[in-house]
Amino acid sequence: MLMNIDVALLPKGVNEVDLSDTVCIVLDIFRATTSIVTCLANGCSAMIPVLSTEDASRVASQVSPVLFAGERQSIKIDGYDFGNSPWEFSEDKVKGQQIVMTTTNGTIAIKATEGAYRTLIGSFLNATAVCRQGKGYGKDILIVCAGTDGLFSLEDALCAGLLVQLLAQEGDSLLTDSARGALLMYNEAKDKLIETGASSRNGQRLYDLNKMDDVEYCFQTDLLDNVPEYVEGKIILNKLGK
Amino acid sequence: MLMNIDVALLPKGVNEVDLSDTVCIVLDIFRATTSIVTCLANGCSAMIPVLSTEDASRVASQVSPVLFAGERQSIKIDGYDFGNSPWEFSEDKVKGQQIVMTTTNGTIAIKATEGAYRTLIGSFLNATAVCRQGKGYGKDILIVCAGTDGLFSLEDALCAGLLVQLLAQEGDSLLTDSARGALLMYNEAKDKLIETGASSRNGQRLYDLNKMDDVEYCFQTDLLDNVPEYVEGKIILNKLGK
Repeated sequence: MLMNIDVALLPKGVNEVDLSDTVCIVLDIFRATTSIVTCLANGCSAMIPVLSTEDASRVASQVSPVLFAGERQSIKIDGYDFGNSPWEFSEDKVKGQQIVMTTTNGTIAIKATEGAYRTLIGSFLNATAVCRQGKGYGKDILIVCAGTDGLFSLEDALCAGLLVQLLAQEGDSLLTDSARGALLMYNEAKDKLIETGASSRNGQRLYDLNKMDDVEYCFQTDLLDNVPEYVEGKIILNKLGK
Repeated sequence: MLMNIDVALLPKGVNEVDLSDTVCIVLDIFRATTSIVTCLANGCSAMIPVLSTEDASRVASQVSPVLFAGERQSIKIDGYDFGNSPWEFSEDKVKGQQIVMTTTNGTIAIKATEGAYRTLIGSFLNATAVCRQGKGYGKDILIVCAGTDGLFSLEDALCAGLLVQLLAQEGDSLLTDSARGALLMYNEAKDKLIETGASSRNGQRLYDLNKMDDVEYCFQTDLLDNVPEYVEGKIILNKLGK
């Protein structure tokens, strides 16, 4: 069967398309989806992505007990349990917990796929696992890059290129121009991923904040093998993903 | 002086930004801007880009004498003098003529830059010339890819990457993520440009129509050295570009 592989370089317009027969893989490498994959690997039972602190408070009033994650200008929100750095979501802090996560770009991208057959959460960390799982449904694939404030983000496109490579390496597939473009970017950058990622706008911001360990962590390919899935407002572990 | 270099992978949103201090370079490789550069090199005095055959007729009633160029589904419009293939715009047919050109994607991209300091017409053919001219103004540069029907086009992004490389190779410049992404694509593809271009959606369409000579021509880097400029509705030769 021929599988179509497409990449949305930004989430804008994704929700205008019929995705009922499409598996979406959402990427927000710096750092929402990287943190989500890490957090679920460490035993968190569910993460709830929201746009704002107001939404977080509202959700928390319906779900209890719950912890809070989120930051503004890369600083943990006052009173919250976590910022957005993947290092914070350690097993001793997240195991068995539900966590409301405030993230603008990641939440917009995830919610843009709400009509999809499945929405899986991807990253460099779980690249092979999420592709294996995504392919398993026998549907077309749309990789959705979160971008940043409506602008193209290099780190998301690089990860999209890796996923295109993994998805297309066996079986018949048809790549759109944006899938081909992402693949070219990844192939050119793959031997200098961290350096290239650090040169991106978000990478430079993390570097300036002395968070190069975040940048390096976000580019660790296949460190983990879990596949988070977004189902009815919550991100949980896709049991088939293991 | 630090020069900012940005790439709009699609024209959408370009006209919402203040471009009064920015030089725009518009690319629609298959085939509008490639044909424009060729046509002006062969002595055409002005090309007038329009969206529709209705607009073409309206413009023609104000400008006389005038020839018509345009096609639908890659077939020359009935009664028109030219289609969209660059080969058609030979010196014996275009010298001293004004030509109204019907092209949807190219026209949208060009008109999106109407508030810009300058709008130059780029292609692989005049890559070095358009970059030299663009840099000469000492302004920031925005490369605008026309795309196709609102979708990312690989051939436009590849040319954008070449222009980023040429623009950034001397002097201090700051690249946005999309400029970095285009540069990565170009660097990965540069030794197999025609093959990569032929794999794109538009490239495959031209291949299917037995127009591989168009594909090959559109990737001839630096074959020409003229720099067309869009001024008050018309594309004319920028005299400084020579």
